[in-house]
Amino acid sequence: MLINKLVILGLGLIGGSLAAALREAGQVNQVVAWGRRESTLARGLELGLIDSFSLDLDEVLADADVVVVATPTLLAEELVNRVLDRVGPDTVVTDVASVKGNIYRAVQAQRATVPGNLVLGHPIAGSEKSGVDAAKADLFDRHRVILTPSEETDAKAELLIRKMWQATGAEVVSMSIPDHDRVLAATSHLPHVLAFALVDALSGLDSSQDIFRFAAGGFRDFTRIASSDPTMWSEISLANKEALLETIDAFDAHLAKLRSSIETGDLESIAATFTHAKSARDHFSRLMDERQSQLPDKD
Amino acid sequence: MLINKLVILGLGLIGGSLAAALREAGQVNQVVAWGRRESTLARGLELGLIDSFSLDLDEVLADADVVVVATPTLLAEELVNRVLDRVGPDTVVTDVASVKGNIYRAVQAQRATVPGNLVLGHPIAGSEKSGVDAAKADLFDRHRVILTPSEETDAKAELLIRKMWQATGAEVVSMSIPDHDRVLAATSHLPHVLAFALVDALSGLDSSQDIFRFAAGGFRDFTRIASSDPTMWSEISLANKEALLETIDAFDAHLAKLRSSIETGDLESIAATFTHAKSARDHFSRLMDERQSQLPDKD
Repeated sequence: MLINKLVILGLGLIGGSLAAALREAGQVNQVVAWGRRESTLARGLELGLIDSFSLDLDEVLADADVVVVATPTLLAEELVNRVLDRVGPDTVVTDVASVKGNIYRAVQAQRATVPGNLVLGHPIAGSEKSGVDAAKADLFDRHRVILTPSEETDAKAELLIRKMWQATGAEVVSMSIPDHDRVLAATSHLPHVLAFALVDALSGLDSSQDIFRFAAGGFRDFTRIASSDPTMWSEISLANKEALLETIDAFDAHLAKLRSSIETGDLESIAATFTHAKSARDHFSRLMDERQSQLPDKD
Repeated sequence: MLINKLVILGLGLIGGSLAAALREAGQVNQVVAWGRRESTLARGLELGLIDSFSLDLDEVLADADVVVVATPTLLAEELVNRVLDRVGPDTVVTDVASVKGNIYRAVQAQRATVPGNLVLGHPIAGSEKSGVDAAKADLFDRHRVILTPSEETDAKAELLIRKMWQATGAEVVSMSIPDHDRVLAATSHLPHVLAFALVDALSGLDSSQDIFRFAAGGFRDFTRIASSDPTMWSEISLANKEALLETIDAFDAHLAKLRSSIETGDLESIAATFTHAKSARDHFSRLMDERQSQLPDKD
């Protein structure tokens, strides 16, 4: 048994799925949840995800071995500090937020040194569904979890969080906070912004009824992420503002170049860009296929 | 039997799949293909898609009942005219290109009146795969085909092409050429340009190796269309230049507004845009589900 008492702060898709996965793996003795809405916590109990809950933060934190901050991004900034104020150095504190720099800076701003029992992390798993009812034990199976230990992080604390995620079937990797935030801006935050911007733009056109009537499967795939939780994604956009603005600008420069080639009728230049992009996308797709086939089964 | 002699000009994914579907439905007696590469045509014969082929346009067109121009967009512009020069008014000529305005204008430019036996059309089906080897009889099943008859089009010719597509399992609708080109620019051509531009931009970043290593399923869906045929899509971008530039600019204005809200930290404005987009995307998704469930089975 890896963890005696696991505390989940914020019982949504990620927190609920983590609880379910660790229980299924037999790696946790007791799961206690805290949140702002009693109905959500009661639902988690009903679904068998947790053993008990409370709306009182001090109460749930008592004797915690691992505390997972699994709330939306902006609340997580504040909550990580509140938790660190309340737990001893033997309680390991981690989070699951999509941006790491803002949380680290919030911790730095509140204390002389960043505590060693803090291990920031980010499971690269999700769904356009959210909420405790979408939680499932295999959400992280064969997915990546990125840990972003800082120079202050205890090796032992990091190892515990690594083992915790491995028990869910995930592959755990480590990288620096700036690298994480840049990579996620490019692969996740920018695509979400583009998908939201596209659907917003199209729905404002006169012909939007026809547009949505005649769109096909490619459009459905392309815009799937625009069905994601708008509140969560607006918080992420601000939390990772700096890296996101950089990637928006890099994208915009490439789009402007393409637009100009289309306007001047430069077939060769358009074809060169599309060919280069297809080759990169096909390479990425092969990487993903290989990764899926190489990851071990959880059992 | 709907068609005695069907002639396919350009035996790729679309032409090959149409031949396969009509043969399977028992609605064609003889399928003859023309193309620029003998190896492709020989492959089509080997796959059982066609009965015979020739590299000589005059030879294949003799006694044709229906001629389907299924070549890439820019060649189709020229080929439709060459076919109309060679066939009588009882042979119905149609095409499958993704843009209709450029073909119509090319026909107009070459003759006093647009012939009534020309029925321009566009099956909204495809794949990131292309070529005759990807052809399959059910490609159009439960997909839409848009016909864009002009005021010159014979009703009888249009009806034959409508029945031809219905025999493949498709749902056939009609709209004007400008409406078609605007709707397709928004739902298909712009998303392709954005996906190509994004992958091109990301592959140029220093951290592109990490970017592609850590990208997840959402990114894979979002960039799937960047694996499409680059030559085909650069031709489409130019063929539909006017409508495409308009939608790029509409998109760009929305992206610029979002970028500015992110820069100034305006959470409320970002959330409002994302919420509006999610609601439009969810509405579209329900429409697609309903459409799929309402379409009759082919059999």
